[in-house]
Amino acid sequence: METTARMKSNPGAAPGLEHDDLIQLASAAGSVDIRCIDYCAAELRVQEVHDLEDFLAHHRPDWSRVRWVNVDGLSDMRAIHALATKYELHPLAIEDVLHVTQRPKAEAYGGEDSELLARLFIVARALRLEDAHLSSEQISIFLGHKTVLTFREGPSTLWDPIRQRLESKNSRLRLNDASFLVYSLLDAIVDQCFPILEHYSDLAEDLERQVLRRPDRRSIRAIHRFKRDLLLLHRTAWPMREVVSSLHREPHECMSEATRVYMHDLYDHVIQIMDIVEIYRENASDLTDTYMSSASHRMNEVMKVLTIIGTIFIPLTFLAGVYGMNFHHFPELDKPWAYPAFWAICIVLALGMLYWFRKKEWL
Amino acid sequence: METTARMKSNPGAAPGLEHDDLIQLASAAGSVDIRCIDYCAAELRVQEVHDLEDFLAHHRPDWSRVRWVNVDGLSDMRAIHALATKYELHPLAIEDVLHVTQRPKAEAYGGEDSELLARLFIVARALRLEDAHLSSEQISIFLGHKTVLTFREGPSTLWDPIRQRLESKNSRLRLNDASFLVYSLLDAIVDQCFPILEHYSDLAEDLERQVLRRPDRRSIRAIHRFKRDLLLLHRTAWPMREVVSSLHREPHECMSEATRVYMHDLYDHVIQIMDIVEIYRENASDLTDTYMSSASHRMNEVMKVLTIIGTIFIPLTFLAGVYGMNFHHFPELDKPWAYPAFWAICIVLALGMLYWFRKKEWL
Amino acid sequence: METTARMKSNPGAAPGLEHDDLIQLASAAGSVDIRCIDYCAAELRVQEVHDLEDFLAHHRPDWSRVRWVNVDGLSDMRAIHALATKYELHPLAIEDVLHVTQRPKAEAYGGEDSELLARLFIVARALRLEDAHLSSEQISIFLGHKTVLTFREGPSTLWDPIRQRLESKNSRLRLNDASFLVYSLLDAIVDQCFPILEHYSDLAEDLERQVLRRPDRRSIRAIHRFKRDLLLLHRTAWPMREVVSSLHREPHECMSEATRVYMHDLYDHVIQIMDIVEIYRENASDLTDTYMSSASHRMNEVMKVLTIIGTIFIPLTFLAGVYGMNFHHFPELDKPWAYPAFWAICIVLALGMLYWFRKKEWL
Amino acid sequence: METTARMKSNPGAAPGLEHDDLIQLASAAGSVDIRCIDYCAAELRVQEVHDLEDFLAHHRPDWSRVRWVNVDGLSDMRAIHALATKYELHPLAIEDVLHVTQRPKAEAYGGEDSELLARLFIVARALRLEDAHLSSEQISIFLGHKTVLTFREGPSTLWDPIRQRLESKNSRLRLNDASFLVYSLLDAIVDQCFPILEHYSDLAEDLERQVLRRPDRRSIRAIHRFKRDLLLLHRTAWPMREVVSSLHREPHECMSEATRVYMHDLYDHVIQIMDIVEIYRENASDLTDTYMSSASHRMNEVMKVLTIIGTIFIPLTFLAGVYGMNFHHFPELDKPWAYPAFWAICIVLALGMLYWFRKKEWL
Amino acid sequence: METTARMKSNPGAAPGLEHDDLIQLASAAGSVDIRCIDYCAAELRVQEVHDLEDFLAHHRPDWSRVRWVNVDGLSDMRAIHALATKYELHPLAIEDVLHVTQRPKAEAYGGEDSELLARLFIVARALRLEDAHLSSEQISIFLGHKTVLTFREGPSTLWDPIRQRLESKNSRLRLNDASFLVYSLLDAIVDQCFPILEHYSDLAEDLERQVLRRPDRRSIRAIHRFKRDLLLLHRTAWPMREVVSSLHREPHECMSEATRVYMHDLYDHVIQIMDIVEIYRENASDLTDTYMSSASHRMNEVMKVLTIIGTIFIPLTFLAGVYGMNFHHFPELDKPWAYPAFWAICIVLALGMLYWFRKKEWL
Repeated sequence: METTARMKSNPGAAPGLEHDDLIQLASAAGSVDIRCIDYCAAELRVQEVHDLEDFLAHHRPDWSRVRWVNVDGLSDMRAIHALATKYELHPLAIEDVLHVTQRPKAEAYGGEDSELLARLFIVARALRLEDAHLSSEQISIFLGHKTVLTFREGPSTLWDPIRQRLESKNSRLRLNDASFLVYSLLDAIVDQCFPILEHYSDLAEDLERQVLRRPDRRSIRAIHRFKRDLLLLHRTAWPMREVVSSLHREPHECMSEATRVYMHDLYDHVIQIMDIVEIYRENASDLTDTYMSSASHRMNEVMKVLTIIGTIFIPLTFLAGVYGMNFHHFPELDKPWAYPAFWAICIVLALGMLYWFRKKEWL
Repeated sequence: METTARMKSNPGAAPGLEHDDLIQLASAAGSVDIRCIDYCAAELRVQEVHDLEDFLAHHRPDWSRVRWVNVDGLSDMRAIHALATKYELHPLAIEDVLHVTQRPKAEAYGGEDSELLARLFIVARALRLEDAHLSSEQISIFLGHKTVLTFREGPSTLWDPIRQRLESKNSRLRLNDASFLVYSLLDAIVDQCFPILEHYSDLAEDLERQVLRRPDRRSIRAIHRFKRDLLLLHRTAWPMREVVSSLHREPHECMSEATRVYMHDLYDHVIQIMDIVEIYRENASDLTDTYMSSASHRMNEVMKVLTIIGTIFIPLTFLAGVYGMNFHHFPELDKPWAYPAFWAICIVLALGMLYWFRKKEWL
Repeated sequence: METTARMKSNPGAAPGLEHDDLIQLASAAGSVDIRCIDYCAAELRVQEVHDLEDFLAHHRPDWSRVRWVNVDGLSDMRAIHALATKYELHPLAIEDVLHVTQRPKAEAYGGEDSELLARLFIVARALRLEDAHLSSEQISIFLGHKTVLTFREGPSTLWDPIRQRLESKNSRLRLNDASFLVYSLLDAIVDQCFPILEHYSDLAEDLERQVLRRPDRRSIRAIHRFKRDLLLLHRTAWPMREVVSSLHREPHECMSEATRVYMHDLYDHVIQIMDIVEIYRENASDLTDTYMSSASHRMNEVMKVLTIIGTIFIPLTFLAGVYGMNFHHFPELDKPWAYPAFWAICIVLALGMLYWFRKKEWL
Repeated sequence: METTARMKSNPGAAPGLEHDDLIQLASAAGSVDIRCIDYCAAELRVQEVHDLEDFLAHHRPDWSRVRWVNVDGLSDMRAIHALATKYELHPLAIEDVLHVTQRPKAEAYGGEDSELLARLFIVARALRLEDAHLSSEQISIFLGHKTVLTFREGPSTLWDPIRQRLESKNSRLRLNDASFLVYSLLDAIVDQCFPILEHYSDLAEDLERQVLRRPDRRSIRAIHRFKRDLLLLHRTAWPMREVVSSLHREPHECMSEATRVYMHDLYDHVIQIMDIVEIYRENASDLTDTYMSSASHRMNEVMKVLTIIGTIFIPLTFLAGVYGMNFHHFPELDKPWAYPAFWAICIVLALGMLYWFRKKEWL
Repeated sequence: METTARMKSNPGAAPGLEHDDLIQLASAAGSVDIRCIDYCAAELRVQEVHDLEDFLAHHRPDWSRVRWVNVDGLSDMRAIHALATKYELHPLAIEDVLHVTQRPKAEAYGGEDSELLARLFIVARALRLEDAHLSSEQISIFLGHKTVLTFREGPSTLWDPIRQRLESKNSRLRLNDASFLVYSLLDAIVDQCFPILEHYSDLAEDLERQVLRRPDRRSIRAIHRFKRDLLLLHRTAWPMREVVSSLHREPHECMSEATRVYMHDLYDHVIQIMDIVEIYRENASDLTDTYMSSASHRMNEVMKVLTIIGTIFIPLTFLAGVYGMNFHHFPELDKPWAYPAFWAICIVLALGMLYWFRKKEWL
C-alpha cells in the first residue's frame, strides 16, 4: 500500500526541520524546475528560474499584482532552503512539504509583515490514474497577500489550463487577486477527479455485468481492487472537504470575499465527488454480496445437474448389477422378453425420475 | 451509472461561465419552450413566449403580483443568456443550471435592487419512474420578490396541477406571493415521490415472496437493482432534506412567514420519504441475507435428497456386484432361495436406511 | 408493507386541505363515534355526542376545568369540518389527521385567543399486536389551555383505563389540568408497547432455540418477519422519543410545570423501549448469522455422513467388480477360500476406513 | 431474555405510584432487611432495623455526619411506604425503585428544606456472574445533604468492603461527606465489572482457540451466548457512563467538590470498561466470520478427500465392469497376462490421478 | 487478551491509593532505574540516581531550567512513594501510574504553588512490535513549570534519541522549556508507530496476495490476528488523539505557546496514523470477504472437476453393467463387432459430455 511507504524516514528524528538539517540535506541536491509568473490585469511575465539566487535577489516588478512561484520536484534542498528563508516559511510547514504523504489540510500562520508568505499553508492531493492504477500526488500551496508559492512532487500537466487562462487578458484570473489563483489551483485539482470518477463508473458497470453474468476468479480480484481504489478516493476527498470548507467558512486576511464565494462553489464540487464515491462504495460493497450470491447460484446449478445425472444412473446401475448376478436359480434370465423389458424399465425409471425432478423444479 | 455522466464536459475549464462562453455556446442554439404566467388574486395571464427579445423588452403589467417564467429545455444558450442578463443571474448559478447533475441545494445571493431575481437559487431533482427505470431530472428555481424563474431539462407534466390550480380564482396560490409558488413547485416535486415509493413497496413485497418461495437467478439481479434504485432515492432525498430544512429555518427576505409554515409541512414530507426509503433499504439489505439463507436451504434440500438416493443404492449395488462375482466355490449361488433372499435383503436394507434417515430428520 | 399504502391519495393535490375540499369530502360521510368528557376535581360529565351541531352550539359548563373531545373514525368529513371550524384548527394539521401515515411529531401553532385549540398538535402512533401481526394506528391530539381534542382511526380499548381513572375522584388526572390529560394519553400509548415487547422477547427466545436446535425453512421466514417487525417498532419509537423529549424540554404555555416532570418520566420509558428494541435488533441480526452457521453445520453433518457411506462402499464395489470379471486366466477364482477371503477383505477395508475417519474426527 | 421480564406489571396503570397503591401493595408484605449506619470521623454506629416505625420516630444522633439506610429486598411495601413518607420521596422515583428493570440514570429533584432526601436519585445496575450466567441487579440510591438511602433487590456481598472500610477510623470514607459515600457505592458497582471482564477475556481466548482448531456445534452456541452477554454488558455500561459523566460535570448542591474529582476517576473506569467491552464485541463479531471460514474450510477439506477417494475408484469400477461383460467375442479375456495387466492399469491409473491431484494442490 | 489482564488486583479496594497502602506495598520492593537530567541552553547534567533519599534532599542547581526525572520499572513502591510525597502527586494519579492498563488521557490538577508537579498528568501508551507480536506499554508523564517526571514499566530504548538530541547544544530541546520536552516525549511515542504501520502494510500486501492466490487455513488465522492487532492499534491511537487534541486546544499554565504549535503538528501525525489504521481495517474487513469468495471459488473448482469425472464415468459403468448381465436371450452379445462398438459408444459418450460441459462453461 502506497500510503505508508517512506512516511517518516527516521522516527526518532527531531520534529520540524532545523536549519542545519536543510543544509545537510541540500548536499544531496537534485534538479528541480522553478517557474515564476507575475501578472496584473494589464501585464503578464513568465520566467523560467535557472539561477535561483539571482532571482531571489531581484525585487519583483511594481506592476506585479500577483507573483506565483511554482516548484516541480523536491530533490534540490538548497533551492527549497533558499525559498524557505526568503519567504520565512515555518520549519514544520517545510517538513510537511518534503514528507509527501500528508493528509490534505489548511493551516494559518500568524505574522503582520507585508511580504511574509507564511500566512496560509494548504496541502492538497491530486489524484492521477495511469494504466488503471490510481495514485495521488501531494501539492503544497503557500498563500501571502500578493504571492503564491506551490510545490509539486514532479512535473505534470495539472497547471496547464490555468497558465493558458492567465494568458487571456480578460480572464477572471487576471482580474482577481492571489487568493483567486489559489482557488483556481484547488479547482483544477478537484475537477481532475471527475474524469477519474467516470472511469470508475464504467468499471462499476462492467463489474456488475460480469458478476451477474459470469462470475469468476478475476471478478474477485477486480472487485477487491475496485474497493481499494474507492477507499483511497474517499480518504483523499474527505480531508479535502474539510480544507475547502474551512477556506470558505473562516475569514482569512489573504482570502478576498469574492474568492470565498467561489470556494463555496468548489465546496459543492467536493461534496458532489464524495457523494458519488459514497454511492460507488455502497455499490461495490453490494457487488461482493451479489458476487457471492451469483457465484454460489452458478456453482449450485452445475452441481445440481451433475448430481442429477449421477442420481438417475445409480439405480439403473444397481439393476444392471442385479441381472449380472450368477445365481443358478434366476427365473428372469431365461425369459426371451427379459432383456427388452430391462431396457424398458430403465427408460421408464429414468424418465420418471426426470419428470419428478422437473415437477419439484430441481431442473 | 447515470450519476457521473457528463458531469463536467471539460475539467480544466474556467470556474463559472464567463459571458463570452455563453455567447459562444449560444451559437449552438436549439429550441426551448418558454412560458410566462402573470397573476394576482384578480387576474391571470398565460403567455407562450416565442420572441424572447420582444418579451423581455416589454414591462410586466402593473397588476401582476407574481411573474413566473418557466423554461423547458436548456439547449438555446442565446435565450438563457438573455434571461441571465435581464435578471442578473450569477455566472456560477447559470453554470449549475446548465450542468444538470447538481445535488439539490439552496443558495442566497445578496443584492438590494428591487427587480433583481438572483436573491434565492434552489436546485431540486425530480424523480421519474418509466418502465421500472428510475431517473432524476434537475430543476433550477430562482426566486425574487415578485418573480420566479424555473429551468427544466425538458418538457414534463410536473407543473400541470399547479397551472390548473392557478386558474381557480380562490386557490391559495393566487392569494399568496411568489415564495408560495416556489413552495408549491417544491411540494409538487416532493409529492411525486410517493407513487414511486408505492411502486417500490409493491416491488419489495414481490421480491420477498419470490425470495422466500423460489429464489433464483432473477432474484439476485432484481435485489441488486432494487438496492441501487433505493440508493439513488436516498441520495436524492437526503440533500433535499437540507434544502427544505434551510428554507424553513433560515429567514430570507423573499420568503414570507406564511410560506415558511408550509415549508415545515414540506419538511415533514421529505422526512417521511427518507424514513420510508430507510426502511426499504434495511429491508433490502435483509433480503440479500434472506436470499442467501433461502437459496442455500433450497439447494441443500435438493442435494440432500439426491445424495440420499445415491447413498441407498450404493450398498445395494455392492451387494449385486458380490453375487456377480465368478468364484467357483460360491455356496449361496446354488441355493434356490438365494435370489428372492437377495431382493428381500435389498428391500430391508433400503427401508432400514430410509427409516434411519427419517429418524435423524434428514428427510 | 403497510407504511406507504395510501400515503397520499393524489400527489398533485393542493398542499393543506382547503375548506372547499372538506365540504366536498364531507359528501362521502360515514359514521364516527364522538365522546365528550368534561371534568374538574369535583365534577365529571361524559356525553356521547350524536348531534354534533347541537353540541357545538352549547357552551361548556362553567365548572369544566378540562374538556376532552375524542373522535373515533375519520370518515365523517362533515363532523371533522365542524370541529375544525369551531376550534380553528390549521388546515395542514387537519390534513395530517386525515392522512393516517404521519410520523409522530409535535407542533406548536401560535395564537393569543383564549378558546383557540390549535396551540399544540401532537401526532402519535399506537402499536397493536393482533394474531402475531404488528400494526400501528395514528392518534392525533390537539391541546389548548382547557381543551383536549383527540382523533383515532377507529374504536379501540386504548383510552379505557384513563376513563376509569377519571371516574375516581382523587385520581391525579382529576386534580390536574389539560396537559396532564395529554401526558396520560401519551403514557397509555407508550405503556402499550411493553406487553408487545414481552411478546417479542418470547419470540426471540423461541427463534434462538429453534435456530440452534433445528434450523429449517420456517426459521428463515420467522427471522425475516421478526426483523421487519423490529424495524417497525424502531421506526415508531424513534420519532416518539423526539416528540416526548421536545414536550419535556421546550416550555409551552399550555404545558404545566408539573406535567413536564411527568413527561421526563415518560421520556425514560421511551428510551427504555428503544433500548430494548435495539437489543432485540442486534440479537435478530446475530440470529441470521447463527442460523447460517447452524444450518450449514447441520447440512454439512448430513452430507458428510452420506458421503462417508458412499466412500466406504465405492472401493468395495470396485473389488466385487474385479471378481466379476470374465478373464479366463483368473487364479483367485478357483481357490475355495477366495469367497470368504473376499468378505474378510471387505470387512477389514470398511472397518479400516471407519477407524481412519474417526481418527481424523470426521465422524 | 431477562431484560423485559416483568417490566411493567399492568400497562394501563396510573403513572407514578399513588399513595393508595402503596398501601394496597403493602398488604402483600414480605420481609426486608434494613440496616442503618451513622458515622462521622470520630464515631460509627451500625443498627439492624427491625421495628421501622420506632426507628423513624427517633431523631438521629447529633454527631452523625452521614446516615446511610440500606434496604435489601423490595417486597415489604409498608416499609418502603414509611421510608418514602419520611424522606418525601417522589412517587415517580418510588415507581422506579420498585420496577427493577430501569436503565441507569441520575435525576435531581428540587426542594429547599434541609432534611428532604429527594435531592438526587441515582439508579445503577450491578452485574453478577453466577455459573457462567450473567445477570444484572438494580440498585437505587437517594442522596440528601447528610443522608444516603439505598435499595437493592436482595441481599448481596456488594457493600461488604465499604462497610469494612467504614470501620477503619482514618479511612477517607469516614473523613468525607455523604456524596463521597455515594461515590464509593458507585465505585464498588463499577469495580465489580473488572473480574467479570477477565472472565470474558478468558472465554474469548478459549473460543478463539476452539474456532481456529476444531469448530463445531458448541462453538456456534458459545459464540452466540458470548455476543448476547457482551450486548448486556454494553447496554449496562453505556447509560452508566452518562450517569457518572453527569455527576462529574453538573454541579449539585449535595455533591462536594472533592467527590467530583473522584467521580472523574470513576468516569475513567467506566470508559475503560466500555472500551474493553467494545474490543470484545468487535472480536466476537470477527469470531463469527472466523468460525464460518474455519468451519467451511474444515468441511471442504473432508469433502474433498472423500470425493477424491470416490473419483479415483469410479473409473476403476468402470474398468472392472468392462471386463465383466459377457460379449462372446472378447479378445482380452483369453490372454493369460490380462488379469495382471488389469491390476497394473488400475494401480497406474490410481497413482496417476493421485499425482495429478497433488500437483494441482488439491491434496 | 492482554487488555484486561490484572486490570485491578482487588475490585473492592479503596479508590485511590491511601498512604498506608503505599507503605504496605513498598515492603515488596523491587529494583528500579531512576535517571535525572537537568538542563538549560548552556548546561546539561545527567545523574543516575542510586540513593533516592539523598537525591531528593538536595536542591536542584540554579541554572537548571528543566529537570527531567525518569523512572523505569514500577516495582519499588518505596521510591515511588518518596517521589509522590516530594512532588505532591495526587493519590488517584499514582494509582493510574501503578495500574498499567490505563487508556491514554490528560488531566490537569489545580494548585498555585511553584514547585508542585501535579499540574498536568498525561498517560500515553507506547506500541512495541517484537517477533510479529504487538504489545503496548504504559508511559505516565507529569508536567510542572520546570519539572517533568516520567514513569515507564521497564527499560526501553524509547528515550534514546531524545537524550542524544539533549546533548547537542543548539537543539530546539535545549532552547525550550519543560512543556517542549513533554512534546518531544509524546512525539517519540507517536513516531514509533510509523515503522509498525509499515510492517502491517507489508503484512496486508502479503495476505492479499496469499488470499487471492492460495487461500488456506493459515490465511484465516493470519487475517484474524491482523484484525486483532489493528483493533489494538485503533484503540491505542483513538484516545491518544483526544489527549494531543486537548493539549493543543486547551491552554494550560505549564504549556508554552510555542509548544502548542508543535502539538498541532503532533495532532496531524496522530490523525494520519488513525487514517492509515482505518484504511487497513477496512482493507482487513474486505480481506475476509475476499478470502471467503476466493476459498469457496477454489473449493468449488475442485469439487466441480471431481464431480465431472464421476459424472462421465457413471453412465459408462451402467453400460458396462448392462453387458455384464446374464440374460440368455441377449442378441448383442453374439455380434463380433459388439465389443469394439461398446468402446466406441463409451468414447463418444465421454467426449460428448466433455463437449457439453465445456460448452456450458463448466470446465
